[in-house]
Amino acid sequence: MFDIQQINEAIKERKARYVGLQFPEGLKRKGPEIAKTIESDTGATVIISGDPCYGACDIDEGLLDMVDVLFHFGHSRLSDDDRIVFIEYYHEVDVSKAIETALPMLGQRVGIVTTVQHIPMIEHVERLIREAGKTPVLHKGDSRITYPGQLLGCNFSAAPADVDSILYVGSGNFHPMGVQLATKIPVIAADPFTGEARKVDVERIMRQRYAVMAKAMDAKRWGIIIAMKSGQKRLELAKRIKATAGDAVLISIHEIAPDRLLSFKVDAYVSTACPRVAIDDAGRFNVPVLTPVEFDIIKGLRSWDDLAFDEIRGE
Amino acid sequence: MFDIQQINEAIKERKARYVGLQFPEGLKRKGPEIAKTIESDTGATVIISGDPCYGACDIDEGLLDMVDVLFHFGHSRLSDDDRIVFIEYYHEVDVSKAIETALPMLGQRVGIVTTVQHIPMIEHVERLIREAGKTPVLHKGDSRITYPGQLLGCNFSAAPADVDSILYVGSGNFHPMGVQLATKIPVIAADPFTGEARKVDVERIMRQRYAVMAKAMDAKRWGIIIAMKSGQKRLELAKRIKATAGDAVLISIHEIAPDRLLSFKVDAYVSTACPRVAIDDAGRFNVPVLTPVEFDIIKGLRSWDDLAFDEIRGE
Repeated sequence: MFDIQQINEAIKERKARYVGLQFPEGLKRKGPEIAKTIESDTGATVIISGDPCYGACDIDEGLLDMVDVLFHFGHSRLSDDDRIVFIEYYHEVDVSKAIETALPMLGQRVGIVTTVQHIPMIEHVERLIREAGKTPVLHKGDSRITYPGQLLGCNFSAAPADVDSILYVGSGNFHPMGVQLATKIPVIAADPFTGEARKVDVERIMRQRYAVMAKAMDAKRWGIIIAMKSGQKRLELAKRIKATAGDAVLISIHEIAPDRLLSFKVDAYVSTACPRVAIDDAGRFNVPVLTPVEFDIIKGLRSWDDLAFDEIRGE
Repeated sequence: MFDIQQINEAIKERKARYVGLQFPEGLKRKGPEIAKTIESDTGATVIISGDPCYGACDIDEGLLDMVDVLFHFGHSRLSDDDRIVFIEYYHEVDVSKAIETALPMLGQRVGIVTTVQHIPMIEHVERLIREAGKTPVLHKGDSRITYPGQLLGCNFSAAPADVDSILYVGSGNFHPMGVQLATKIPVIAADPFTGEARKVDVERIMRQRYAVMAKAMDAKRWGIIIAMKSGQKRLELAKRIKATAGDAVLISIHEIAPDRLLSFKVDAYVSTACPRVAIDDAGRFNVPVLTPVEFDIIKGLRSWDDLAFDEIRGE
């Protein structure tokens, strides 16, 4: 599944004595076997990161400082630090059935977007769209994006604007909803794991977000959250929001958890951390947690019609 | 409660533009008010650490790297880093009633131990013991200990050996149990908040720990936890345990939580992190989590009679 040979070579080439491994949740169980293989092949001491890892933005800096090289699995490169080696992870699941189901729902010009696990399938998806007499459109995202058509949970810059519909290849709701809100173009989500396809509906999430925003409108004291993760740290944005909020304090957090937010006596939070946290964990928070976009809306700096997911954009 | 004037002066003296504040859980609610006062007095931008903080070992390194000075509240100095200012916190509760209750339970030579919150009361405690015709004994701990008689949850080096009984002033069970296990001298715990005193009983905790150790004796695959917190990082100890364990992997963790331990397919853990975690959270873990002391016992490197809490000792 991963090319251990390539990893071993990188270790030998760097003469690394201490090696770090970082996996997203779904791949962590493979950690101990990989660690043992590397140790017996190279003689290096391997340390696995046991902290949660939700993206390429989420580098274990503490571990990085302890080792000579850190292998970060499952995400594409998002850092210039050459002590980190990114090992991508591709799902080998066939996308054909899901695309077939999606085809009748698509317009003439079809933008293609996906997450890194399905990137190797993109050429095949283009071919299927062309064979159906439609035009596939792939857009290169900004500097934080490695591949044309690739989405991050915090970056939809690879979604094309000049198309009739967008085809999202992958599972989950967050990415396709984000694309639809960002582009206002209909998105068809094709899930290769189930073979199903569906038109993405953003109405429910918008209602939920409007409800959270309404609750936050009475807030007097604000907490502005700054993430401590390398790819999420947005201090200048946090300071701008603090100045607008008035009675507000800056709070730095490594892992945003409901009980950590209860420690402070504030009425509402704005999270400048990973844009998914405010949305995905909304039901677990006892106080409203807004994204910067939503904060701007309730402060009248942006229109209510312009609700979108927060993004961390590159150049 | 805290000397804000002194904090403001330290900020001005250092010409600090960014200021970090770190509080233990019980003091976090005071954070926003203190932050606002400092900001309006000095013009600096203040960031409060929102992550849990359990001791002076638990410095928010990420925040420290973002600011010019970090004020760490509630714990005594345990770091040479001069970017950190430790602001101790003292309880003003009177200890007299609890000591009076304790006196009849004490021998002739009485060792005195306490936590940093009650350190200013120690002279008064000595006087009360002397007035009762007994001899108070204060012992200077090792290099990690700031005051004679001061305990940390991971360091009982200030507990005297040459006494008939030890008087623990403070609340909670962990510290006095640790002292009793470390010294094998009877410990009387005097709680200034309730005015009560009691003989410390270690039998229940020993039974619990023996049960966890018994469960771990069948473990084939081990995870050896290394803490990422500055004052808890014990890599060499972890490597020594890994070598003894055989089939074992090193796992680095910032905050040890039950779900993080479930991510890996191992049968048992040894935690070289904060010694309290394995003990205090035992009921929440689905796999046995041993301290290094307990691991040595089940591997035959230490006697079963010699069960003690793990300590992080200085020089």
